[in-house]
Amino acid sequence: MAPAPGEDMAEYQLHCMKESGNSYKVALMLQLARCDWQPVWVDYFNGATRRDEFRQEFNELGEVPVLVHGEKKLTQSGAILTYLADHLGKFGGRDSDEKLEVLRWILFDNHKFTSYYATLRFLFGLQKTGETPVTEFLRARALAAFGLVEKHLADQDFLVGNRLTIADLSLVGYLYYDEPTGIDRRQFPHIRAWADRIAAQPGWKHPHDLMPGNPAG
Amino acid sequence: MAPAPGEDMAEYQLHCMKESGNSYKVALMLQLARCDWQPVWVDYFNGATRRDEFRQEFNELGEVPVLVHGEKKLTQSGAILTYLADHLGKFGGRDSDEKLEVLRWILFDNHKFTSYYATLRFLFGLQKTGETPVTEFLRARALAAFGLVEKHLADQDFLVGNRLTIADLSLVGYLYYDEPTGIDRRQFPHIRAWADRIAAQPGWKHPHDLMPGNPAG
Repeated sequence: MAPAPGEDMAEYQLHCMKESGNSYKVALMLQLARCDWQPVWVDYFNGATRRDEFRQEFNELGEVPVLVHGEKKLTQSGAILTYLADHLGKFGGRDSDEKLEVLRWILFDNHKFTSYYATLRFLFGLQKTGETPVTEFLRARALAAFGLVEKHLADQDFLVGNRLTIADLSLVGYLYYDEPTGIDRRQFPHIRAWADRIAAQPGWKHPHDLMPGNPAG
Repeated sequence: MAPAPGEDMAEYQLHCMKESGNSYKVALMLQLARCDWQPVWVDYFNGATRRDEFRQEFNELGEVPVLVHGEKKLTQSGAILTYLADHLGKFGGRDSDEKLEVLRWILFDNHKFTSYYATLRFLFGLQKTGETPVTEFLRARALAAFGLVEKHLADQDFLVGNRLTIADLSLVGYLYYDEPTGIDRRQFPHIRAWADRIAAQPGWKHPHDLMPGNPAG
């Protein structure tokens, strides 16, 4: 997806792949904020993020997404979203209290919501390990986190401040993928309505329509 | 630990227990920054954080630490540390780039470092489940995260900007506990030296000396 020599570069390059919900969190932010951006495909499934060149050039932690903006190379979806919200003046907290509340949800997402759910989806839905003690453990933890978010969304449309913020983009990132996880999302009507509300935002696209993936996949 | 009627309240109250490394991250910040604070013991092991009153009064997510500062009730250790660094002007990033780098490490801590290691310690070291597929899974993930931090610390004394920041306080939080995890920390000499460097800061105390725990424990 890198432009040919002589072709114009977009303002932002997002190193990503369509299977990565953490990449999608940033891609969706760039898309909804109408930024000039382009995806750069990372061949994760053939080990691209684990190679020394990737670690030296882009991220010592060996992960996508990586956002390149001018001289800056930014990693960790929550940090990138915070950077973009500040830089663009969009989808961030409106004051210091709201910014802290947004950060609180992004941390919860990294600690308990995306972390358990995305790992469950990876093992059960992509690697197809079948049911194991590990998938059972991850599912129980993910269900507990879903229960907390379901309760929070019972009486508000978005996680913070009754409007779309990067907290929503962070937590919703994995919820548009269809791989099986053994979790019946019909149990969580408020979460479903919230994901639908985000999908109704002008410009919204599915992860598979925003980012490239394995050509053979 | 709550003061008796008529007794002066400290400026900060930290709802916590000594077994919680996430509580310790905040307790250590308050201690190293020489704040006027007091711990308030939460009877986690008897279910205090799971009760409706705790969720309604302090944290809908049912977790410690909770920091009470005047009218504010703050949760998520990474958000509390960020609040305190900004409010006190201590141990935070010095500019927007450094603040983002601090946030990146705190997110990594929540996603992959503390999350796997603390859960492993809880199951293997406190609940004493013995070795199971889940403890093996968590240990492999924790070891991968330790390896990344070890490499990062090979040529610098602290995680960000060559001085102590809240990123260090976040990642180091669980490393002073002695419960078995099946991880031999001698494999990670740079991490050990870094934890010793933090323990050498003026005013440093062990978690068991900063926070109350189960009186029978």
